[in-house]
Amino acid sequence: MKGRTHLTTPSASFSVTLRIDLDDPKLVGTLSSRLVEEGGVITAMDMVESRVDGLVVDITCNAIDEGHATQLAETVSKIEGARMRVMSDRTLLLHLGGILGTAAKIPLKTRDDLSMAYTPGVARVCRAIAADRGAARNLTIKHNSVAVVTDGSAVLGLGNLGPEAALPVMEGKAALFKRFADVDAWPICLDTQDVDEIVRTVEIIAPVFGGINLEDISAPRCFEVERRLRSSLAIPVFHDDQHGTAIVVLAALLNALRVVNKALGEVRVVVLGVGAAGVAISELLLAEGVGELIAVDREGILDPKAAVMDENRRLVAERSNRRGITGDLSVAMAGADVVIGVSGPNLITEEHLRSMAPSPIVFALANPDPEIDPAVARKVAAVVATGRSDEPNQINNVLVFPGFFRGLLDSRAREVTPAMEIAAAKALAGIVSEGELSSAYIVPTVFNPVVAPAIAQAVVQAARYGG
Amino acid sequence: MKGRTHLTTPSASFSVTLRIDLDDPKLVGTLSSRLVEEGGVITAMDMVESRVDGLVVDITCNAIDEGHATQLAETVSKIEGARMRVMSDRTLLLHLGGILGTAAKIPLKTRDDLSMAYTPGVARVCRAIAADRGAARNLTIKHNSVAVVTDGSAVLGLGNLGPEAALPVMEGKAALFKRFADVDAWPICLDTQDVDEIVRTVEIIAPVFGGINLEDISAPRCFEVERRLRSSLAIPVFHDDQHGTAIVVLAALLNALRVVNKALGEVRVVVLGVGAAGVAISELLLAEGVGELIAVDREGILDPKAAVMDENRRLVAERSNRRGITGDLSVAMAGADVVIGVSGPNLITEEHLRSMAPSPIVFALANPDPEIDPAVARKVAAVVATGRSDEPNQINNVLVFPGFFRGLLDSRAREVTPAMEIAAAKALAGIVSEGELSSAYIVPTVFNPVVAPAIAQAVVQAARYGG
Repeated sequence: MKGRTHLTTPSASFSVTLRIDLDDPKLVGTLSSRLVEEGGVITAMDMVESRVDGLVVDITCNAIDEGHATQLAETVSKIEGARMRVMSDRTLLLHLGGILGTAAKIPLKTRDDLSMAYTPGVARVCRAIAADRGAARNLTIKHNSVAVVTDGSAVLGLGNLGPEAALPVMEGKAALFKRFADVDAWPICLDTQDVDEIVRTVEIIAPVFGGINLEDISAPRCFEVERRLRSSLAIPVFHDDQHGTAIVVLAALLNALRVVNKALGEVRVVVLGVGAAGVAISELLLAEGVGELIAVDREGILDPKAAVMDENRRLVAERSNRRGITGDLSVAMAGADVVIGVSGPNLITEEHLRSMAPSPIVFALANPDPEIDPAVARKVAAVVATGRSDEPNQINNVLVFPGFFRGLLDSRAREVTPAMEIAAAKALAGIVSEGELSSAYIVPTVFNPVVAPAIAQAVVQAARYGG
Repeated sequence: MKGRTHLTTPSASFSVTLRIDLDDPKLVGTLSSRLVEEGGVITAMDMVESRVDGLVVDITCNAIDEGHATQLAETVSKIEGARMRVMSDRTLLLHLGGILGTAAKIPLKTRDDLSMAYTPGVARVCRAIAADRGAARNLTIKHNSVAVVTDGSAVLGLGNLGPEAALPVMEGKAALFKRFADVDAWPICLDTQDVDEIVRTVEIIAPVFGGINLEDISAPRCFEVERRLRSSLAIPVFHDDQHGTAIVVLAALLNALRVVNKALGEVRVVVLGVGAAGVAISELLLAEGVGELIAVDREGILDPKAAVMDENRRLVAERSNRRGITGDLSVAMAGADVVIGVSGPNLITEEHLRSMAPSPIVFALANPDPEIDPAVARKVAAVVATGRSDEPNQINNVLVFPGFFRGLLDSRAREVTPAMEIAAAKALAGIVSEGELSSAYIVPTVFNPVVAPAIAQAVVQAARYGG
């Protein structure tokens, strides 16, 4: 267990099954204790074969990462009388053949069923829509369907992997849409990274869908794609990496401020990282009236006078940093109440936190490795949140997108408004009651069944009555 | 029941529910007998309210068409003491909210499930595909998914209704894909009818899919769209209106020829209508060695010397009509063994049939109204087939497309070959045993569970071993 990063919890997300030949049944004990010593968490042991001259056993084991799994395999081969046959990855096995499918919503058992679902009866449904295109919202899946669209240019934190490699993420997302809000979402992975082609393709395939969820499209292209689609389509368009993240962050921040007893209008917030998420977070905090916002990127504090900047960063630059300070992250952090990192690993230091105002709030959201080790951050900060599922206060988009689209579809919204986003954030924050609220519990868990309906309801209200 | 067309069978595809106020319970009898006299087939009667001063009843009733339903409603209003409240269409109700949805193929109950299906575990699946794009066929829904693509330019027999109005057909088709062959098909309705845009859009969205089913795209555009997509994509592309129809027709023809004891290589076949289906039927019959083929369109017998003709019609013209006859349908029909109509209603007369060779075979496939009333055709022909579900020998694409794509996906085919189409047709024909075969039974019914697996198997064999 040497040479690992500071975050070393084995998890089901990296679960491997080792198939091992053993010359002697007694070796099972040695085997399991060696694996545990080496940091593996054994979750299952299955006897595959038991012969007079030995046995074959499957040991399923949570590991930390690929390096750790290899290490576990090596440990096995060092035991005399034990031989590794094969190591298989449970996550890959789970994704075999894909994890999403279709389902007919009606029975198709008799000829009568067929004649209503398909020809000749369906002709009447077609004619009803031809006479009134708006009827498609009643009589087709447009009523409940969302396209999860990516070009594969910014897949998770992994970079530009292309459309095929992005597909497992879009499938997972579509499955979560179904699981948490009964939305029928289908993955669309585009074999182009040209903005004009992306925009035109989504426009062309839009008739089937009641909403568009953009996903994992790299900045700054994502801003233009979203802006153009929002202006050309009559269905809502939502880039989850921007707005989903911003909504969860605002919700978490509202509750974190309750913990430290500060008001949003009075705090100074540093946003570190001005990509898709950073821009959207900044815009939403500004819309909701944050006291002061300072955005910091690789070049230091965002300066509206800087020459080369895409439109969205410029908008943030113009509306932030009202005192006009210049310098690096250290300058920005001095005296700040909140820091929200959506950048990369290990950019925030303990010294940065010690320079902040009393009871600092730290959201270190870079994935999988946060801007600062949360254990270190907790030594100084009053509230710490990350993107990780193995830490308290996970800022997870799954909290928002299912319910948000449920609300968009239910209200037949034609666009996404800031009022909806703020309403969703407040609804999410409000789920944590005064009694439950603590520095380790500022957002509900994703399995809380109240979350999606509450957000959907807030979106529907905002769609109907505006802000 | 006057003034109706010759095809007057009420069916579940046009089923209405009449909600009626009655002043006196005794009127129920009058009501139902009047509706039956008027040609309605009552399938259900539900008491909605029963009060001292009368009752409310829902009568569900199969009708022939919209005119007939209106007539039934008028019948009700003529009964003293009865008042129609509302008439609702069961087919429209069935399509409310759409008939297709998604389903997760894995459990999503625990945090561990989530961490494998989605982040962080899914990152490993993405990386595996980024390292080897071909792995997408194993690790994603590409393994089992088909896009059902239309531009809404030729929806059923209804014409150019546009993409929204085409969606109910594509949903129905996707539901049948699932029902009959467990294929996960998703509708893609394109908001463009420009060939270049259609082709480019399908190319761009192809990464998610293991096959493309083109549907209801008007001729001659459909030929170019298919040809270009077949050359640019590494997944099979199949225009069902062409090839699905052609395969069922060939299967039905092979069995019809068994009934009359003639050989395909010796018969003269007239194909009436040279649109999408007519071209594909002609090509497949020629590929399988039909004795003589004569194609007839609005202008008469197809003549290779004619000036204006699209490429596909020209190919048919060049390979058909080897005796070089000219004239209209009557000339073509004289002495022919088989006529296959894929054109419009009432173009074939009894006299045409009487001019044919002995034991003529008549496929009158125009929908909903055939080229000749099948009752009239049966007076002369040895075998009659139509596209209608209320007649024997229904030539229905549902017999082919689910199993055909099952075979394409299972064999990981990169293209569709004529050998696959012929193998599928022979497999379909072969399901009807010598003992079952008769002039009224030349194709199995769509609910025969043997159909899809037999076709899939034939496609897989043809994909592996060629013709």
